[in-house]
Amino acid sequence: MASTDLAAKRRRTRKDYPFHLEYRTRWFDNDMYAHLNNTVYAMLFDSIINSYLIKYCGMDPFSTNNRASRGSPTPSSTTPLSQQVGILVSSYCDYFASVSFPDVLDLGLRVVRLGSSSVTYEVGVFREGEEEVKVVGGYTHVFCARETMKPAKEGMEEAVRRALERLIVRDIARL
Amino acid sequence: MASTDLAAKRRRTRKDYPFHLEYRTRWFDNDMYAHLNNTVYAMLFDSIINSYLIKYCGMDPFSTNNRASRGSPTPSSTTPLSQQVGILVSSYCDYFASVSFPDVLDLGLRVVRLGSSSVTYEVGVFREGEEEVKVVGGYTHVFCARETMKPAKEGMEEAVRRALERLIVRDIARL
Amino acid sequence: MASTDLAAKRRRTRKDYPFHLEYRTRWFDNDMYAHLNNTVYAMLFDSIINSYLIKYCGMDPFSTNNRASRGSPTPSSTTPLSQQVGILVSSYCDYFASVSFPDVLDLGLRVVRLGSSSVTYEVGVFREGEEEVKVVGGYTHVFCARETMKPAKEGMEEAVRRALERLIVRDIARL
Amino acid sequence: MASTDLAAKRRRTRKDYPFHLEYRTRWFDNDMYAHLNNTVYAMLFDSIINSYLIKYCGMDPFSTNNRASRGSPTPSSTTPLSQQVGILVSSYCDYFASVSFPDVLDLGLRVVRLGSSSVTYEVGVFREGEEEVKVVGGYTHVFCARETMKPAKEGMEEAVRRALERLIVRDIARL
Repeated sequence: MASTDLAAKRRRTRKDYPFHLEYRTRWFDNDMYAHLNNTVYAMLFDSIINSYLIKYCGMDPFSTNNRASRGSPTPSSTTPLSQQVGILVSSYCDYFASVSFPDVLDLGLRVVRLGSSSVTYEVGVFREGEEEVKVVGGYTHVFCARETMKPAKEGMEEAVRRALERLIVRDIARL
Repeated sequence: MASTDLAAKRRRTRKDYPFHLEYRTRWFDNDMYAHLNNTVYAMLFDSIINSYLIKYCGMDPFSTNNRASRGSPTPSSTTPLSQQVGILVSSYCDYFASVSFPDVLDLGLRVVRLGSSSVTYEVGVFREGEEEVKVVGGYTHVFCARETMKPAKEGMEEAVRRALERLIVRDIARL
Repeated sequence: MASTDLAAKRRRTRKDYPFHLEYRTRWFDNDMYAHLNNTVYAMLFDSIINSYLIKYCGMDPFSTNNRASRGSPTPSSTTPLSQQVGILVSSYCDYFASVSFPDVLDLGLRVVRLGSSSVTYEVGVFREGEEEVKVVGGYTHVFCARETMKPAKEGMEEAVRRALERLIVRDIARL
Repeated sequence: MASTDLAAKRRRTRKDYPFHLEYRTRWFDNDMYAHLNNTVYAMLFDSIINSYLIKYCGMDPFSTNNRASRGSPTPSSTTPLSQQVGILVSSYCDYFASVSFPDVLDLGLRVVRLGSSSVTYEVGVFREGEEEVKVVGGYTHVFCARETMKPAKEGMEEAVRRALERLIVRDIARL
């Protein structure tokens, strides 16, 4: 990554992210070094991204078989269900400072690139009560038809695109 | 377990637990059956129990070595630091109904047995907005001296005992 | 649990278990205390039990939807696929000694109770090169019809029962 | 990443990696889509990298406090213990095809950049019995003095450097 990009990431603030979720850390998030293991950040990225996809984009990761089982998931979406699924093709992360259980974290989500059938997300991780961003990372999804698991010729569904566009931040000041 | 015990556990309500923490579920908490994997409940038990031990009992799981590393954990305790550590000797769990990401959970903690050097915790797992308890489980800690990793003759430290006693619920009505 | 049961568990050897799998530990299995977190044992129980169920009992946790996705799981079973699914109703574990990454573990599986529609498994955890059992635990499955998620009147399927019976160990000498 | 880099990664074979470890997957590695969750690959990267660091570079993640506890880890290294610790500063991963529990995986490790105090690892993930690489990723460590958690002026220790150099692959044929 260009070093200017990296410097820009270090300066991220909560306002750079349109969608937020608060996550309480868990005992087992800390590894032997007594800080969050790097994989925990990726679990949190998955969580805020899928929360947004389920709630605002009509994504339905709960398969027919699974729905039959005890209890029932609670997707609160009113968007029509999507016929596509997001396939992860690459991921990235920069770690600036560490956090530890029992910290409470504030996650922010933005979209940094929106292609025809792909989207690249960025998540910023903040510690409750502190300004400086601790970790910035994310991944790229390619939306594929459920039956073929190939990208549709016409790209991602319109409802998904519109919801993802709301996460794009135009930061002209940073160019 | 006696079947009467099991029936009593099924009737647990939030009021049966003196200490509570809210936990947001994560994408990867769901396993292939699209519900929380059983090990996630145990991770949450660890989390609420250690949160209480760190905050109210002076437990310090952050070792000297580890403290030197980047960032710093944020134990908010004002209790003097304990010279003992809780060793897990047995665990148990009953699963009555399932929950799924992206549910938000409410955990309740109580102490069901307090011995000379041991304590047995019980945690109830509730889903936000619902009365019925989903899962009830916990484990037994034996407090050991850090140097010897053996239970101290005089049992657990007084400050720890007093803080744990506050989690005992006298439910005469249920006998 | 009766203390005689506990004493018997402490004496378990590899020969007490008919089915074995070797598992290499992972960095993140160790928690802040530098030993395997208790939830990791439960993940390993899930793994050896489901390996046996998929390979010898015709269990098929891979849903129709999921099969469509990239790559394909590799169930090596030739048993006809089961129409039932095992629902976890309770779990238990006793911890006698700890192990740590990068240890290699040997897991042993047996069946300790086989009812009409339920089975209780026990897993013993051994460290490569050592005789003494470190952890003994397991859980109880109730087999339910996929459509109703209720136990079938006629109990578990015959092929499942026959495969599980092979895991019962008659240890008269221990009574 | 340049697309030529990506094409080269897709062509990786086991022979491109000097150090290998076999890992059996676990039930809970599969997420709702019935394939390994992306975070599991990162857990495996951590595991093969730290296995190499402990065994061949004298790295000692087991702190003094922790050593006192029950059982004991089993570092098989005869290298003098390092006074530095590797701090993760960035990570990356490309996902070409998926794998699922109960697959057995073969991991390969190489070093792709060795600086004065930093190293960038690359791990390739293969499925037992198949040639094509499924996932290629890794991360960058900066070696810091334990006391200051800052990179030492003289860079990483010589013994560490020599062990890491053995993981560099000169693939002139690919340029």
